[in-house]
Amino acid sequence: MSFPDIPSHVNRPGQFSFENGIRVTLARPGYAEGELEVRPTSSNPHGTVHGGCLYTLADTVAGTAACAHGASCVTISGNMEFLRPADGPTIRCVATPKKQGNTLSVMQVVLTNAQGKEVATGTFTFFMLSMKKD
Amino acid sequence: MSFPDIPSHVNRPGQFSFENGIRVTLARPGYAEGELEVRPTSSNPHGTVHGGCLYTLADTVAGTAACAHGASCVTISGNMEFLRPADGPTIRCVATPKKQGNTLSVMQVVLTNAQGKEVATGTFTFFMLSMKKD
Amino acid sequence: MSFPDIPSHVNRPGQFSFENGIRVTLARPGYAEGELEVRPTSSNPHGTVHGGCLYTLADTVAGTAACAHGASCVTISGNMEFLRPADGPTIRCVATPKKQGNTLSVMQVVLTNAQGKEVATGTFTFFMLSMKKD
Amino acid sequence: MSFPDIPSHVNRPGQFSFENGIRVTLARPGYAEGELEVRPTSSNPHGTVHGGCLYTLADTVAGTAACAHGASCVTISGNMEFLRPADGPTIRCVATPKKQGNTLSVMQVVLTNAQGKEVATGTFTFFMLSMKKD
Repeated sequence: MSFPDIPSHVNRPGQFSFENGIRVTLARPGYAEGELEVRPTSSNPHGTVHGGCLYTLADTVAGTAACAHGASCVTISGNMEFLRPADGPTIRCVATPKKQGNTLSVMQVVLTNAQGKEVATGTFTFFMLSMKKD
Repeated sequence: MSFPDIPSHVNRPGQFSFENGIRVTLARPGYAEGELEVRPTSSNPHGTVHGGCLYTLADTVAGTAACAHGASCVTISGNMEFLRPADGPTIRCVATPKKQGNTLSVMQVVLTNAQGKEVATGTFTFFMLSMKKD
Repeated sequence: MSFPDIPSHVNRPGQFSFENGIRVTLARPGYAEGELEVRPTSSNPHGTVHGGCLYTLADTVAGTAACAHGASCVTISGNMEFLRPADGPTIRCVATPKKQGNTLSVMQVVLTNAQGKEVATGTFTFFMLSMKKD
Repeated sequence: MSFPDIPSHVNRPGQFSFENGIRVTLARPGYAEGELEVRPTSSNPHGTVHGGCLYTLADTVAGTAACAHGASCVTISGNMEFLRPADGPTIRCVATPKKQGNTLSVMQVVLTNAQGKEVATGTFTFFMLSMKKD
């Protein structure tokens, strides 16, 4: 399995997202998709997926969408609304732009469970750094 | 090491937070502290601590503060501001209330690095469920 | 001009929104539209529409959408992203649900200028009160 | 009554904040205070102060704190938590920094009623523009 368009630094061992079952599955400038493979260790005290795990999925996918054209960026802020309990086997995330600027980008995310129900939504703001040369 | 006042369901294997190096170190109603032991697997693509890892720390500690009097609660929403790059060896989180209601609680968190510099702040809103009987 | 489906307490003198040029123009359960007629007194120090004025439009329209089925509700929290400077003659707001629950509703808003460009987006969370009897 | 340290463009007719009873009462770099004089036209449908009016107070005071050293800035995003119903005769707002950067500043606000009870809190992020020359 390979995702040729995906920034090579996202889906790799050592990354907090990767180590916790998160993969970016599609990326182009201003759009990205990703998936969490829910594990026994994805849990919060209620036995559903931890909000921090969902946030990790969202931040990773949104950041990939914001930076997929070769720039680098850092997250300034991000908020999430937890709409209903999330469980497995998978949670899917789609990120689309509210704004794509040279300095700031604002991405929205929608997270759905395997039945297609929205479990969480969020908005992330990124500060765009200089273009990568590599 | 034991933390006798801490809800027993937080610091235990299988929890997403625990599995990623996060411990609640102090908890009483309306106040909690916790710590992330930064690991090589805590990283984002920039090599600093992933925002999702910081969010996990924050949500876990804030939720403990909101529920430390024996109630159960779920996170409705939570936002974070990432103030500067975060790195190890540890990140500390303190949660204090903006509001503690019977139905809703709002907690603020401050995350500091080992040098005492604030790396992130946030606000989490919880919906309070019925008191636990166990 | 009349808006027969709109809760009668929104578009009326004395309301902060009404007094500042804001009207709800369409409302049904889970959906509402509204408009700000930009005035010389809508300004921030930059000479564009004040973020607080945009937030007033958004909160009013989102709250109407959340409560249009006859319930009453209060805003728990609301965040906005200001995407570009906003100016007149009008700003339009559309509110749609992310979640409509018996206890909590989460509404998203999109604000556009007269050229159809998005100037701001936001997310508002409402706590649903008992149904109105009148 | 004069506030010699306050940016001259804030407390003046035509400003949305000023026209709605809001004054900045103290400002220095990284700190500002302001007050809303609650009016009959400050209301939401519940008869308490409209969230948009509180947000206007907060954004105005936070922006003044962020820019009080002579820079100009624009609000990128801002969220508020409404903790309890707000009513008059006055609402006071204090803004303090979470971060003061050359590019980005993050301010937190606390709004209290005349009895000193917190009615709302919030966090605002500003993008810093070039220094003003006037």
